Amino acid sequence: MREDARDAAGRVDEQRLWQRHAEMAQIGAIPGNGVNRAALSQEDIAARKLLLSWAARRTFTVSVDGIGNLFVRRAGTDANAAPVMTGSHMDSQPRGGRFDGIYGVLAGLEALEAMHEAGVTTRRPVEVVAWTNEEGGRFAPCTMGSMVFTGARPLADVLDITDNEGIRLRDALADTLAATPHAARRDFRSPAAGYIEAHIEQGPLLENARKTIGVVTGIQGLRWFNIEVFGKTDHAGTTPLALRKDAMRDAIAIINALAELTHDTQDITRFTVGRMLVTPNSPNSVASHVLFSVDIRHPNPQTIARLGDAVAPLARKAAKFCGLKVTPTLRDDPCVFNVPVTDAIEDAAQTLGLPHLRLPSGASHDAMYMARMCPTAMIFVPCEKGISHNEAENAAPADLAAGARVLTAALIELANR
Amino acid sequence: MREDARDAAGRVDEQRLWQRHAEMAQIGAIPGNGVNRAALSQEDIAARKLLLSWAARRTFTVSVDGIGNLFVRRAGTDANAAPVMTGSHMDSQPRGGRFDGIYGVLAGLEALEAMHEAGVTTRRPVEVVAWTNEEGGRFAPCTMGSMVFTGARPLADVLDITDNEGIRLRDALADTLAATPHAARRDFRSPAAGYIEAHIEQGPLLENARKTIGVVTGIQGLRWFNIEVFGKTDHAGTTPLALRKDAMRDAIAIINALAELTHDTQDITRFTVGRMLVTPNSPNSVASHVLFSVDIRHPNPQTIARLGDAVAPLARKAAKFCGLKVTPTLRDDPCVFNVPVTDAIEDAAQTLGLPHLRLPSGASHDAMYMARMCPTAMIFVPCEKGISHNEAENAAPADLAAGARVLTAALIELANR
Repeated sequence: MREDARDAAGRVDEQRLWQRHAEMAQIGAIPGNGVNRAALSQEDIAARKLLLSWAARRTFTVSVDGIGNLFVRRAGTDANAAPVMTGSHMDSQPRGGRFDGIYGVLAGLEALEAMHEAGVTTRRPVEVVAWTNEEGGRFAPCTMGSMVFTGARPLADVLDITDNEGIRLRDALADTLAATPHAARRDFRSPAAGYIEAHIEQGPLLENARKTIGVVTGIQGLRWFNIEVFGKTDHAGTTPLALRKDAMRDAIAIINALAELTHDTQDITRFTVGRMLVTPNSPNSVASHVLFSVDIRHPNPQTIARLGDAVAPLARKAAKFCGLKVTPTLRDDPCVFNVPVTDAIEDAAQTLGLPHLRLPSGASHDAMYMARMCPTAMIFVPCEKGISHNEAENAAPADLAAGARVLTAALIELANR
Repeated sequence: MREDARDAAGRVDEQRLWQRHAEMAQIGAIPGNGVNRAALSQEDIAARKLLLSWAARRTFTVSVDGIGNLFVRRAGTDANAAPVMTGSHMDSQPRGGRFDGIYGVLAGLEALEAMHEAGVTTRRPVEVVAWTNEEGGRFAPCTMGSMVFTGARPLADVLDITDNEGIRLRDALADTLAATPHAARRDFRSPAAGYIEAHIEQGPLLENARKTIGVVTGIQGLRWFNIEVFGKTDHAGTTPLALRKDAMRDAIAIINALAELTHDTQDITRFTVGRMLVTPNSPNSVASHVLFSVDIRHPNPQTIARLGDAVAPLARKAAKFCGLKVTPTLRDDPCVFNVPVTDAIEDAAQTLGLPHLRLPSGASHDAMYMARMCPTAMIFVPCEKGISHNEAENAAPADLAAGARVLTAALIELANR
């Protein structure tokens, strides 16, 4: 590790970083230590203003793009070099926690602060970005800011999306942009030399393995299906099983077959049936209709493709008595992060003496879109019991600071390449 | 078979019996050929008046007991002899059909008509009873009239039960009794020499076997449970399966274990999971709570006891990850019908040249309570595709008449014993 990177990492201020989480958590605070900070809301605007007030204390410059992604830049020595970027999002789930998203923004700002205090110079600029609407809780779909910034979907496509109260994204966005009038205008797809996103794990692996730093190797692929079983209702007392078209029985048979398909002694494959609706849903009536969801995830592109493609034929084979409709509802191909960037993160953790673990991300993040544009990876820090999207979300100040130290060192490394 | 029994059976009038079903179906008619005739409603009162108007054309006498069970008697030669009884109920499910219950009452009346027309005399009186509130759709529990008549539960226990609109059974009953002021008062538990109930099968066995007459050997036993699985919700993408407390996964494991427990190559055991409620019921959230119903039935007392008693320990063994609560919600022990009565029914079917089949009843009936008081059995006739508790319920006029013929002959046989 470079000497200046080690110095800057040492300047990361655990108290300041923790205090800023506490201040951000005041904006949209809900009972039970939670946060409700919807994208493009008054709370989102307040969070943006607070972030910019901290940036204004330094010589950092600010820009914003057409969907409200907010960029805070610390200059490099080469004014023409593409920046190295870090960041995450400031919006939350309706009943969200104090760390999901906001940690990546505040850790990024802390890295800039630490570089400033250490007097580090980098060839490339280093930028913190706060992506708009990662959660998608108010305006679907999620990861919208990075999606539009990277050109995966044009801005015009999302402007007329409305929230549950009928407010158009176009209008909420105009209000949000008007609240930061001094920010320079940033183009979509403006070049980036690299992107590192810090985030709480939202899972229990680091905590269980007693590791402080997760070196995230990619984001796993995902296949969603709705499976509908069409049977026939009958009297539960009078109809022999051989004569039934019991939608519940076939649903169970399909779930058993899918559990066998996805069985994984390494416990990498994720298989979840989280939703089931039964008709008529009466104890003494054979079910005439069952709808259930299937969620399968795996980091390997070949594996998730094989598993996802097997769902419909396997379900048809397992359903012995009833009709079937299998509807794919979502498909995200796996994203494999850039090896030099994951190596830089791992080197930083190693040099700083922080216990670390390579792991894929189970959840989606803005890094998924940035990975299409530039060398990208992520840093995870532990969260208590893996709980997230919940008021009970919690993380240790020391772990948050450790993640920011690794981030600082890795950004300096990349910003001098 | 006695000569007079054969004569009387020959007097059963298929047209009259069918026409009376059609007239009864006008009372509480709903779209799709269905009937909504709740117990102790204005429709129930109208059905009672129509029944009594037909009885009044003959020399039959009428009595009513304290819960509104209505008795129509054709006198025997021995005024002191206990009557042989037949009947069923006139109330229906909220979206019920034209045959469930009412067939047993009209077939009984048709038997009395046929005996009258054939000039048959019997030693014992023969009575048709219309039991109050067999369905329990308005006032729970079901089979209430026979339950109270036979002393299984005192009248005082049910008088304060209310319907969904807050009307007390006590008041609805008073209105019903006031509508038949000329009926003599009948005591609960007044002696009976035998009871035969005719009913549509409500299952597909007779139709599938192409048999006209079901000689019902008993009513199978039933065990109901609510099983609740208490897990923990987690992110479907991030949590390894080994670390999950997935309530759905354990629910499926329990259902698999119960399916294996109840597996029956003879297809006599009935096992149904008809109801399932999942929390939070979201595709990408591991289920924190699943509640499902278990309905197991078998005609053999030892078998149903063994199966029912195995549910809770087996569920506890199958649930690998979650907490469990197993609540028994209903237990009906099997009822074995009286052999001389089933033999009389079988002899009648045999002599009349009607294809018949011995089978247990899958559903509960008022005969279950009468069997505790006197020699009892039932006659089933086929219903289309086994459909019941449904507007689509249907039966063939010839089958209804065949059942009434067997009933007539068997009643005459019993009434001379």
